[in-house]
Amino acid sequence: MSTMQLGTYLFYRLSQVTKTVFGVPGDFNLNLLEHVYNFDESQIKWCGNANELNAGYAADGYSRINKFGCFITTYGVGELSALNAVSGAFAENAPVLHIVGTSSMLAKRGACPLNQIHHLIPPKKTYEAPDHKVYEKLAEPFSIHTESLSDENLEKIQDQIDSVIESIFCHMKPGYLFIPSNLPDAEIPVDLNKQLNFDFITKLRVDPHATSEMVSLTLKRIYSSRNPGFIVDQFMRFDLEKLNLFLEKFNFYCYNTTTARGFADESLPNFHGVFNNELSTNGTLEILDQNDFILHLGTNINEVSYFVGGSTPLDKKDVIFIGKDYAQVGTNGHIITGINCHVFFEELLQRMNSKTMPKVKTRKSTALYNNGYTVDDDSKTVTQANLSQVVSAQLRENDVIINEMCSFMFEMPNIKYSKGCQFVGQPFYGSIGYALPATLGASLAIKDYKKSGRVILFQGDGSAQMTLQELASYIRFEIDPIIFMLNNSGYSVERVIKGPTRSYNDIIVDWDWCNILSVFGDRNGDRSTSYKVEKLGELKNVLTKRLDYSDGKIKMVEIILDRMDVPFGFKKLIGAN
Amino acid sequence: MSTMQLGTYLFYRLSQVTKTVFGVPGDFNLNLLEHVYNFDESQIKWCGNANELNAGYAADGYSRINKFGCFITTYGVGELSALNAVSGAFAENAPVLHIVGTSSMLAKRGACPLNQIHHLIPPKKTYEAPDHKVYEKLAEPFSIHTESLSDENLEKIQDQIDSVIESIFCHMKPGYLFIPSNLPDAEIPVDLNKQLNFDFITKLRVDPHATSEMVSLTLKRIYSSRNPGFIVDQFMRFDLEKLNLFLEKFNFYCYNTTTARGFADESLPNFHGVFNNELSTNGTLEILDQNDFILHLGTNINEVSYFVGGSTPLDKKDVIFIGKDYAQVGTNGHIITGINCHVFFEELLQRMNSKTMPKVKTRKSTALYNNGYTVDDDSKTVTQANLSQVVSAQLRENDVIINEMCSFMFEMPNIKYSKGCQFVGQPFYGSIGYALPATLGASLAIKDYKKSGRVILFQGDGSAQMTLQELASYIRFEIDPIIFMLNNSGYSVERVIKGPTRSYNDIIVDWDWCNILSVFGDRNGDRSTSYKVEKLGELKNVLTKRLDYSDGKIKMVEIILDRMDVPFGFKKLIGAN
Repeated sequence: MSTMQLGTYLFYRLSQVTKTVFGVPGDFNLNLLEHVYNFDESQIKWCGNANELNAGYAADGYSRINKFGCFITTYGVGELSALNAVSGAFAENAPVLHIVGTSSMLAKRGACPLNQIHHLIPPKKTYEAPDHKVYEKLAEPFSIHTESLSDENLEKIQDQIDSVIESIFCHMKPGYLFIPSNLPDAEIPVDLNKQLNFDFITKLRVDPHATSEMVSLTLKRIYSSRNPGFIVDQFMRFDLEKLNLFLEKFNFYCYNTTTARGFADESLPNFHGVFNNELSTNGTLEILDQNDFILHLGTNINEVSYFVGGSTPLDKKDVIFIGKDYAQVGTNGHIITGINCHVFFEELLQRMNSKTMPKVKTRKSTALYNNGYTVDDDSKTVTQANLSQVVSAQLRENDVIINEMCSFMFEMPNIKYSKGCQFVGQPFYGSIGYALPATLGASLAIKDYKKSGRVILFQGDGSAQMTLQELASYIRFEIDPIIFMLNNSGYSVERVIKGPTRSYNDIIVDWDWCNILSVFGDRNGDRSTSYKVEKLGELKNVLTKRLDYSDGKIKMVEIILDRMDVPFGFKKLIGAN
Repeated sequence: MSTMQLGTYLFYRLSQVTKTVFGVPGDFNLNLLEHVYNFDESQIKWCGNANELNAGYAADGYSRINKFGCFITTYGVGELSALNAVSGAFAENAPVLHIVGTSSMLAKRGACPLNQIHHLIPPKKTYEAPDHKVYEKLAEPFSIHTESLSDENLEKIQDQIDSVIESIFCHMKPGYLFIPSNLPDAEIPVDLNKQLNFDFITKLRVDPHATSEMVSLTLKRIYSSRNPGFIVDQFMRFDLEKLNLFLEKFNFYCYNTTTARGFADESLPNFHGVFNNELSTNGTLEILDQNDFILHLGTNINEVSYFVGGSTPLDKKDVIFIGKDYAQVGTNGHIITGINCHVFFEELLQRMNSKTMPKVKTRKSTALYNNGYTVDDDSKTVTQANLSQVVSAQLRENDVIINEMCSFMFEMPNIKYSKGCQFVGQPFYGSIGYALPATLGASLAIKDYKKSGRVILFQGDGSAQMTLQELASYIRFEIDPIIFMLNNSGYSVERVIKGPTRSYNDIIVDWDWCNILSVFGDRNGDRSTSYKVEKLGELKNVLTKRLDYSDGKIKMVEIILDRMDVPFGFKKLIGAN
């Protein structure tokens, strides 16, 4: 055992799971932030954001690539502004650690009537003492693991810090660490030989017996099947390499859900499109119909990912669902708890007998990533439909596709991914404003870990308003995403739901997207290029001839769209014509 | 009794207390928003904001002028983003109604395992049913009165809506109204002869007996005093006309606290500066020392308003504090609950005998609004010190001064207010980013109610980043504030506390503030003028010669300040030299 300052230990541990920490400084976290400067920038560094909500979104975006993201805010005013980002990370299963600098232990102990400290909401009876933990209590529904540090048990702090990191990683959900402002310099006992322990079985309280039984049942079904299909869903985020080796080896038909795009390698000949019940890729359900058994792996069923409200062909199928913490045999089967998809799949790989696996013939995929759209000529204006065709043609290996919750999100099942492409978005939680800061996070994760692949953001103008100050961080931290700014002068999603001509769905019509980066810090145009297009031919020309994808600059492509142009899939979702 | 659609009734009632409703549309509130179009824009209108946090701040700013503000958000993604604004309104005592469109009654009743609707955070056990009220529960510490509407008791809805409006007004604190998405069109029984009832005694549960006793004691002290002083604090926000008639008639020395600027008319000859204990206006404490009795009216004691941590001359004084819900005799006296400053003051006016009041001679005020600063000549660069002198000289009657929580906030006790000037800010809660959207709200309140007075915003560049998209709404909704953009390249407040050269206190250094409005919708410069100044002479020239205060345009004055230039008062507050 040795000792180390708390703040230094924290960043030492964090540097094993991330290289960037996002956030906003405040007087309750300054003592903590000082400790990041004990490390070289190549180990771990600070990325200051424009505001706390953006910091949370950026950490979420980072976590989608890196499987861990982290951000730091200050007491009350900072942490509350970021709560929606944490809620989104929870709903979309992003492993994000939110660290909050809180009032000092002295203030917590010394609180007495009328001794109200700044940032702390006063009690309803103005003569009572304030509750210094009022904000911590709010985190409960949004946090899979919360630790509130104190000076009472310094010897526990190493375990508290480690365990919250471990839980976040294994659960793929956010967690909280509350650190009183006077604690970061405290010397704490630490065992530097101790390693982080990412053991799913203990962390997720897996039931080994139930898991084994489910593996046995599943293997039996696969062995007796002629043509088993594999639907890969969101909780299957880890072990993708093993999964894809398996899918490739046995040639089983496979599909990804909308939130698991790219999990099963979409360039495999046996990949047959995006499964989303009635909103699946055109042709996918006909192919799936040929599967006589389906394993739904990483199950995360919700209104959007499963298009609840529509019908599902799985009702008539022999199907087993394996989720994060349960399994289900058949769509109406009872819930069997204690089963986790990763632990399950690991055991399945170990126990399976390759020789008894069914032999499946390759079939040419007839999934049509075009929804039956006609092919427009270049003189036509850009529409959501022809944009999706252009994008499908232009995607490259390992591209990261980030979708704002704008109308174009519903075009996603029609976009064909190349090998290694990844999806980032909030199709279920749907907090508009997410994608622009998430693009900062995802881009930095790619830069930090020297991954290949372009970052491509599809951004609606209505949603861009929410968080646009983070564009300044694009310039400051030298990232180079491609931004498709889909300009339809407001909230087209809402226009189609209700109020097509109501003022509440309009935004300022004259945002000058092509010049915004110049006032946000790129005064001389060294860090960005911007184009505005209306015709299909102009768009193709910009993408194939004008843009230099290796120039390191931000690429802003503003696309003028009709105010009422929304994807077919969205109209179907809401039952509009 | 008649019937009316719920949404229409809501806006009908709201139109009696406000003319603008802020917010952001979302699919859970669209049915509600439709009803605002049943009214003429002169009665009540929708002001769509760039994001929900900004909407909350704007409603808060509106409420500071109008004594009521209102904004509408959507389920989860919207309401959570605004929580910090509501927390700020609670902490700073701003009467704001937050209306949230929630999941439909059908969804609430039909929730079953695996039926997760969008925007709703799933439970920790992924196979359990979601809690449709998970977000409502979070509002508790931030809401003085919450009503969650349902279709089970339609006959109760009029009372629910009315009572939350009444509570917000009387408590000067935020409240919440949760409206399921399917309810706005429901016909509800309403009594249109019923009036809103702003009765402080019942709403605040005032104890009439304790109040009478305290009035008796206070009158006794005043009668026997030679020279009673009146400190006016934040909870005294109403009845200012009566208060000022009283102060003028009896010529009693009076003072405002930092959060009650302008409450006692600061142009009165018997007004003697800002009382903030050791951080009071220079000279104020010497004058207060002559008061042999002090009535502290509207008491709201906290770390900032009372400079807790320093000493207070009130410890040695014969003083009575009258707060929102309590009174206290002497700084160490016991708390007497059930007493409200407004009810108390009303009774005091009724029972006082003018003839037995002490006769106080006018003394020339020797409060120095300059902190002993030297007078710089025009060739010097602008500093926080000489800026405060220029501003004091330029303020006009009825100006509204909005202060961001930037370093210049601490210069406020040194700025001399003209008659009718009002202060808007969060000196205690201190959420940076507040002021820019609050300026939208305050400006619209002035416009809606045809009040006179310029709106003047003091904005730091570090804090401007937080919420700057709302500048687009300045253009859209045609307001014309004067913006002093104090550009010191980051967080000077934090620099002085810690980390003067650390990257975490820097922001993009090259924000182009003078051109930002042109990309935010004012492409042709019809709606704004911008100036950048570094020298004191330039600043004076812009303010006195270049700006046309009646041109209806936004006036952006960017002032370049030294990175480490902070007010004397701030250094004193944190004990730095």
